[in-house]
Amino acid sequence: MSATPLPPRPTGLDALFRPRAVAVVGASRNPLSVGHLALKKLLNGGFRGAVIPVNPNARSIASVAAVASIEALPDDVDLVVIAVPADKVEPIVASCAKKGIGGVIVLSAGFAEASAEGKAREARLRDLVRAHSMRMVGPNCLGLLNSDPDVSLDATFAPVRPLAGRVAMASQSGALGVAILETARELDLGLSAFVSVGNKADVSGNDLLEHWEDDPRTDLILLYLESFGNPRRFATIARRVARKKPILAVKAGRTAAGRRAAGSHTAALAAPERCVEALLRHTGVTRVATLEEMFDAATLLAHQPLPRGHRVAILTNAGGPGILCADACESQGLLLPELLPATHRALEAALPQAASLANPVDLAAPATADDYRRALPLLLEDPHVDAVIALFVSAGVIDVESVAAAIKEGRRASHGGRTKPLLTCFLGQRGIPAALSSDAESVPSYRFPESAARALACAVRRAEWLAQPVGVVPALPDVEAKTGHAIVRNALAHRGPGWLTPCEQENLLAAFGIPHLRSTLCRSADEAVAAAAALEGPAVVKLASTTIVHKSDWNGVHLNCRGADAVSRACAAIEARLVAAGRREELLGYTVAPMAPSGVDTLVGLFVDPSFGPLLAFGLGGVTTELMNDTAFRLVPLTDAEAQRMVGSIKGVELLRGFRGAPLADEPALVDLLLRVARLASELPEVLEVDLNPVRVFERGRGACALDARIRVGLPETKPLSPAG
Amino acid sequence: MSATPLPPRPTGLDALFRPRAVAVVGASRNPLSVGHLALKKLLNGGFRGAVIPVNPNARSIASVAAVASIEALPDDVDLVVIAVPADKVEPIVASCAKKGIGGVIVLSAGFAEASAEGKAREARLRDLVRAHSMRMVGPNCLGLLNSDPDVSLDATFAPVRPLAGRVAMASQSGALGVAILETARELDLGLSAFVSVGNKADVSGNDLLEHWEDDPRTDLILLYLESFGNPRRFATIARRVARKKPILAVKAGRTAAGRRAAGSHTAALAAPERCVEALLRHTGVTRVATLEEMFDAATLLAHQPLPRGHRVAILTNAGGPGILCADACESQGLLLPELLPATHRALEAALPQAASLANPVDLAAPATADDYRRALPLLLEDPHVDAVIALFVSAGVIDVESVAAAIKEGRRASHGGRTKPLLTCFLGQRGIPAALSSDAESVPSYRFPESAARALACAVRRAEWLAQPVGVVPALPDVEAKTGHAIVRNALAHRGPGWLTPCEQENLLAAFGIPHLRSTLCRSADEAVAAAAALEGPAVVKLASTTIVHKSDWNGVHLNCRGADAVSRACAAIEARLVAAGRREELLGYTVAPMAPSGVDTLVGLFVDPSFGPLLAFGLGGVTTELMNDTAFRLVPLTDAEAQRMVGSIKGVELLRGFRGAPLADEPALVDLLLRVARLASELPEVLEVDLNPVRVFERGRGACALDARIRVGLPETKPLSPAG
Repeated sequence: MSATPLPPRPTGLDALFRPRAVAVVGASRNPLSVGHLALKKLLNGGFRGAVIPVNPNARSIASVAAVASIEALPDDVDLVVIAVPADKVEPIVASCAKKGIGGVIVLSAGFAEASAEGKAREARLRDLVRAHSMRMVGPNCLGLLNSDPDVSLDATFAPVRPLAGRVAMASQSGALGVAILETARELDLGLSAFVSVGNKADVSGNDLLEHWEDDPRTDLILLYLESFGNPRRFATIARRVARKKPILAVKAGRTAAGRRAAGSHTAALAAPERCVEALLRHTGVTRVATLEEMFDAATLLAHQPLPRGHRVAILTNAGGPGILCADACESQGLLLPELLPATHRALEAALPQAASLANPVDLAAPATADDYRRALPLLLEDPHVDAVIALFVSAGVIDVESVAAAIKEGRRASHGGRTKPLLTCFLGQRGIPAALSSDAESVPSYRFPESAARALACAVRRAEWLAQPVGVVPALPDVEAKTGHAIVRNALAHRGPGWLTPCEQENLLAAFGIPHLRSTLCRSADEAVAAAAALEGPAVVKLASTTIVHKSDWNGVHLNCRGADAVSRACAAIEARLVAAGRREELLGYTVAPMAPSGVDTLVGLFVDPSFGPLLAFGLGGVTTELMNDTAFRLVPLTDAEAQRMVGSIKGVELLRGFRGAPLADEPALVDLLLRVARLASELPEVLEVDLNPVRVFERGRGACALDARIRVGLPETKPLSPAG
Repeated sequence: MSATPLPPRPTGLDALFRPRAVAVVGASRNPLSVGHLALKKLLNGGFRGAVIPVNPNARSIASVAAVASIEALPDDVDLVVIAVPADKVEPIVASCAKKGIGGVIVLSAGFAEASAEGKAREARLRDLVRAHSMRMVGPNCLGLLNSDPDVSLDATFAPVRPLAGRVAMASQSGALGVAILETARELDLGLSAFVSVGNKADVSGNDLLEHWEDDPRTDLILLYLESFGNPRRFATIARRVARKKPILAVKAGRTAAGRRAAGSHTAALAAPERCVEALLRHTGVTRVATLEEMFDAATLLAHQPLPRGHRVAILTNAGGPGILCADACESQGLLLPELLPATHRALEAALPQAASLANPVDLAAPATADDYRRALPLLLEDPHVDAVIALFVSAGVIDVESVAAAIKEGRRASHGGRTKPLLTCFLGQRGIPAALSSDAESVPSYRFPESAARALACAVRRAEWLAQPVGVVPALPDVEAKTGHAIVRNALAHRGPGWLTPCEQENLLAAFGIPHLRSTLCRSADEAVAAAAALEGPAVVKLASTTIVHKSDWNGVHLNCRGADAVSRACAAIEARLVAAGRREELLGYTVAPMAPSGVDTLVGLFVDPSFGPLLAFGLGGVTTELMNDTAFRLVPLTDAEAQRMVGSIKGVELLRGFRGAPLADEPALVDLLLRVARLASELPEVLEVDLNPVRVFERGRGACALDARIRVGLPETKPLSPAG
């Protein structure tokens, strides 16, 4: 008998996911040790290759022959699972590297999460694996699982064995990973892969997203995140992957982390949480608030088609739950449409007289399994209906399983209906009816009608996101980026990091075609009077300074100055205030500009987060909006379609759209202005902060214009976020 | 042996809750009939008196001797459970009345919920029981349960037998009642009583609240509401009861029910949902969004003391769940305080080195049951901590039950700790650990950390509500209610229902001491010019009409008119606009008033809802606030403390409190004005709508003043809301 030819050595992440053979270091005879648990899981998980314990002191562990050292391992070992004390890990990984092993999973804790010493140890480990082109999961993790039957790798020490399925999950918390695996098992949610990334010293969530992007066994990706190691890379990868497969994410992390000490409105508003929101929106990742919501949505997305719209029909055998479900649907932005007259007639013919045929369709108390079987296809085929939620409350007379089976049959009987999502809720039942549990045509079942509504809303959001035009980042050929560069370079060379002067600001805005109110910088009150006299109408006189940015806090904005007296008085008032504060030398002079026509005042801003990169902000002007936090944030690059949605996403947009009989404002001009600020952010990384406040939007056709600006330049910092918590 | 003396006949609701003997009408031999199910439940439920089936065609049902008719029942039957077709119910109830039976439960459907005929039938039934001072539950209900061991009455046909306990529940939906009973059973939540009120033809939720108010077996009341039969009675009763016992309510009912066609801002804002919110806030009823939340909160309130504040300590054996829980706590308005240095030191001494001792306290992966036992009392006794949430994720090594037991022991070991609430969460576990299930010192256990945080937030809200001063409804001795009555009567007598004239409005506001801008009503432009000339500064000229109420929609407000020309131009513009619209005859004239000093503009309104009664509204002025829906609503009577909280409850209140260096506004004057409008609402039921918009609030010490007013009078309608859905 000739030896089976050795399959080729897997490369990259495949060394972790598809090893030919696996070794476990640190598996002692103690059955409660992490290494022993991991070894047993690999063995019981039915791994298709050999599992070899490495232990210099035992001939066998868990009845499997052990080898004494890494060096003694056979050549087809591609993955080594390491569960030894932290200070012993490095030499083992070094031996693996020497032997040419492609992957390691370091379960051991005691690295960056524990101490400064651990942090250094982890850095050395990372350098070691990177120097040898190995891939490493962990340290400080729960392990990795690949349910592909050709591999059947369960290299975790979690006490639960998940079902195989089509959902891949990455968790930054190992402990939560256990809970996640338990919950998935309980909900019959099958996994294609699970990775506890731990401290992410090498393999990160971004790597896994790329790996699962084309994995034919993965339809849906779940992420539990505590931090973004590299948000800019995440932005690129997740945005691409989310077009192909749904990505659901729970992002944990304390919300009250404190706002940045702020030099502009935009910076004050751009709290870390807003960066995360903008990032997830940018990428099309569906953010869910809790693990419970993530599982509820995953159960739906894993098994049912996406809805084509947000119209839902509810089928129930009791009024109360129907109302609760309708409430929940509407509060999630779903709509309960009227059914087609034809559907109404068909229901009437099919159902007992007691049934109420409006939406929710209430079969009423004596409803039978047959009623569900008859009614469901009619609802699924109504073209006004994009999804159906079927509710059932047992009064003891009807058997739950028979209703569950009837619902499944009703769905099968519907021609077009299998292209629409169906959700069920069996109130007051323990667990999922057996008839609905996981199989090829699994129908998700929820404990409360509200959970079903929430899950459906997630699916609708994803469908809407997929349907909406991506748009293009416009070329803006009139942008003079080189001029912009020169202005910024010049300012940095002469004064270093800080705020631009009024002239520099105007020139920079002009270079990017960002409309703004032209003003004259006057060094004295006399110059200001002369400049004002040259204007047609009344003038605005403002304090000019590169250090004092909140002009209105310094009585530095004087509107509607008519005549020389008014202008001199304004200048005198500004000067007096600074003199009183002992800051006269910060007064560069006064800017004089014409009064702008009336319009709707908005705020357009830019803030460069050291980790997330440039963040655009948009909101209405004025203090009320700031109190209400009605602002929108987006990452760059910004497409035209996304800029339009950005404007449309704030509640206050009604003011631009003819609220209470006001004229329509020039939204296209505002969108163009936003796109130009985004372009500026892309071209000039040294521009760290822009506050155009207000940007006045005139009547449709008359444009928009920044009436005041503050622009800060500096050296762009790129700060990685803190590692996994 | 002498016969036991017959106990006295119970009266009122006691005939339903504590009958001496019970009869069931409609119990056939069919074991799936509702009557048979109800009979079996009564028998199996261990009712302490006799249960007697009434059936003319059978000598026994379910092995119990039947009697042929109501007339043949023994004299100690106080309650008859009726499950016959709807058209047969009336004669049976008539027989009960004739026999002097005090209570009936009508399970039968086919009444007001079904048809106009059923509605008439239900009305006759109500008249019948009321004429004989009987009490009736239903029709169209699931029945009633009293778990008092002296009674042990389960007169429902639900397939589940609840545990006895200290929670009373009323449900307006029978079907949901089944789900409620199932879920309560599953969560080990014990019930003192349960009533499915059905169509509420006689016994209502209000009656039950009054009954449970002094029921020594009930600590907590749960309500599932679809409608308020009599919201004004609910306001009085629930407000009283909620001081003694927590009331949790889920209020279902479509949110998009459409806003009223509106004659004022206040009316437009006073959507039905806002009435419900105001009512529940007024009463101190804790509103929860979903049944799941209701049970989560009930499990906490039923078994644990109320927290003294909103500071929570988290104890965990894993970082991730700790972060999730901290996030959830903060998003619910709870606070994670720093622990006392002494607590920190004690934890350090008690715990292994790997533990992280900040809050959340992370025992880290190898945590044992002993660690929980040692750490928990230290956290519970920290005076900075008002409540503790203990989380546990099993990695398989430690037994869940041993941790659950240790948590309970840890709590017992704490001296002061038993006065603080303790919540647990065993992630990824099925069901509640046995050690924590229901008993005298039951500790609630949640499936997800977010549920625990939400439940705790409910308890904190209740504790805060109990602690906050009720305040008093001020006497306002200067109010001339009689003058007000006369103005309203006079307007109604001369013009019928409609808007008051500017003069009437000013006189009415003056009678109640509501400060307002005095204006002069001028019949012509010449009069207006003269009136303006008499003022010191510029004038405001406005359209005066009793039919055109949205003056600004008609170019009817001209501010800052200086000089005769400006005033005439304003009058001409107003007239021209009305002439152009063919509505010249609606122009009463022009009001002329001085310009008010600057201040913060707010809106104070009153709207009389036909069902809920007078509803006060408060918000900031201006369109932005309206778009943001940042308004507060309250019912009358309004206490001084509540009026202060009303002002403080909107986000925009910062504008009154020195936002961005602005002077403090005269909040006390605003509160006084609100109290006077509330008084007007109490005194004058014919005032159906008041819109003071804007009410300008000046600097502290300078008062507040209504700059414009619209007041509508009419005949107060009192419309009962639709019956149970």
